[in-house]
Amino acid sequence: MAYPTRIFIILIISIQISHTYSQSVIQSPLKKNRIIDRKTLIRDITDDDEIFCDSWKFTVETNDAGIWSRIPKRCVKFVGDYMLGIRYASDSDRVLDSSLSFARNVKIAGDGKDAWVFDIDETLLSNVPYYQLHGFGSGLFDEKSFDEWVDLAEAPALPASLKLFYELKHLGFKIILLTGRSEFQRSATEKNLLFAGYDDWEKLLLRDDSDIGKNATLYKSQRRQLAEEEGYRIHGNSDYLLTIRVRDDTDIGKKCYIVQIREEAAQWSDLLGFSRAKRSFKLPNPMYYIA
Amino acid sequence: MAYPTRIFIILIISIQISHTYSQSVIQSPLKKNRIIDRKTLIRDITDDDEIFCDSWKFTVETNDAGIWSRIPKRCVKFVGDYMLGIRYASDSDRVLDSSLSFARNVKIAGDGKDAWVFDIDETLLSNVPYYQLHGFGSGLFDEKSFDEWVDLAEAPALPASLKLFYELKHLGFKIILLTGRSEFQRSATEKNLLFAGYDDWEKLLLRDDSDIGKNATLYKSQRRQLAEEEGYRIHGNSDYLLTIRVRDDTDIGKKCYIVQIREEAAQWSDLLGFSRAKRSFKLPNPMYYIA
Repeated sequence: MAYPTRIFIILIISIQISHTYSQSVIQSPLKKNRIIDRKTLIRDITDDDEIFCDSWKFTVETNDAGIWSRIPKRCVKFVGDYMLGIRYASDSDRVLDSSLSFARNVKIAGDGKDAWVFDIDETLLSNVPYYQLHGFGSGLFDEKSFDEWVDLAEAPALPASLKLFYELKHLGFKIILLTGRSEFQRSATEKNLLFAGYDDWEKLLLRDDSDIGKNATLYKSQRRQLAEEEGYRIHGNSDYLLTIRVRDDTDIGKKCYIVQIREEAAQWSDLLGFSRAKRSFKLPNPMYYIA
Repeated sequence: MAYPTRIFIILIISIQISHTYSQSVIQSPLKKNRIIDRKTLIRDITDDDEIFCDSWKFTVETNDAGIWSRIPKRCVKFVGDYMLGIRYASDSDRVLDSSLSFARNVKIAGDGKDAWVFDIDETLLSNVPYYQLHGFGSGLFDEKSFDEWVDLAEAPALPASLKLFYELKHLGFKIILLTGRSEFQRSATEKNLLFAGYDDWEKLLLRDDSDIGKNATLYKSQRRQLAEEEGYRIHGNSDYLLTIRVRDDTDIGKKCYIVQIREEAAQWSDLLGFSRAKRSFKLPNPMYYIA
């Protein structure tokens, strides 16, 4: 079917607007006091790196982009400026607000089983100093140099997460750390967490030999499930991956959580996992994506 | 547990950075060539409406904010500028890119059952002209004046969705329109869709009497399920709500989809629903949120 030519001249705010709506609506369709036709608009939008990359970031953070591997070349500078600038700090701080306002309304039972799960990389710890020297995720992931960086154990805290960590402990939550890092990195990871100001967590869960080859979602889901079997109630989850709990308090609902997610990362839906927290809080991360 | 005072002086990129990492890392922690301590940073971030509201938008679009009812007062101008400006158009266009690159890889069976579901408000049609005159979602939703706007049937198309609509039809998808609007608005809605340039859809599904009081997720899930029972394979879903399919091709997985979601909107998780598309594409909408 032909794509009607006339849509190219439809303005984003149509000028065929009702007579009951004021003239001012017609005057400011896109930029103040400027009427732009769709063709000019498309050129403006796609030519401007800042605008293009900000919107690319939107698709990444909402998962509209699905599985992606590399930052578009033209967006490397944008991502670098974002990560080093005030916006990354600000976005993280507003996620902190959302997390805290949920956490403050959780009724803590006092049996030591009310838990909050944190991812580590780009959640508790910031690898920005590493990625700054490695093109902000514009190249292929280099496991060797990243492992060297992990061994240094000097990644700084993401300040919003450091604050959340201690506020949650103060509220009575037990903190479970659940990371895609491997067991051989346990001592470097512990050292780094202490270096960054974290202290007194309940558990630090890392990938062991049996987890090799599992995608992050399956691995993390299984670990959360084990924690639930130990009696923990996972209220919140902080991660840069966007995950949502399918919940239902009935038994039939419960069955759903333990459905084995197929071990293939080709589908965005695989990211859901099971045994999810009641609420998940997604931190910003336009640098990389590990499903 | 006391919250350590020392974290207030931790820089977002710690200056205690490894000697193996270059001096330039240390010099540009936040704004170029400027080291900011955490206290100054927090003030900068929370005082600046533009930065605060852009981050508020992040929490809304990722659903970190959960259920929310009104734009913060200080963000009304920001939201207005966003909706009327080039960024809303650009964000929508990049979602179009994501949607199309998925759609082009779907194998169309040719039996007329490969389907794509579109929401209407803030997806196919833009109500920006209405919201521009009603504070961009800063007030309470006024059903009476919104219904009058719907009756006018003059909402313009969101250009990115208009393009997607025709590209999908060209690829062989059947288009199912699934809206929270009610049956009594059917003829105004059809008139408006034609006015905006849409044509030749497969189904237009609206709320009937039995849907009164259902939250949007339950209502939409039930309608998608009916469509699936009629044999449609729902590949894609375009909506301003962020939804993710829990998928599994096994029978045990299938059971999960038909678990009745409890009819209470108090939990963000209720938004998930069932009988979801293989991929869902979230469109921008910082104006309002109807769960």
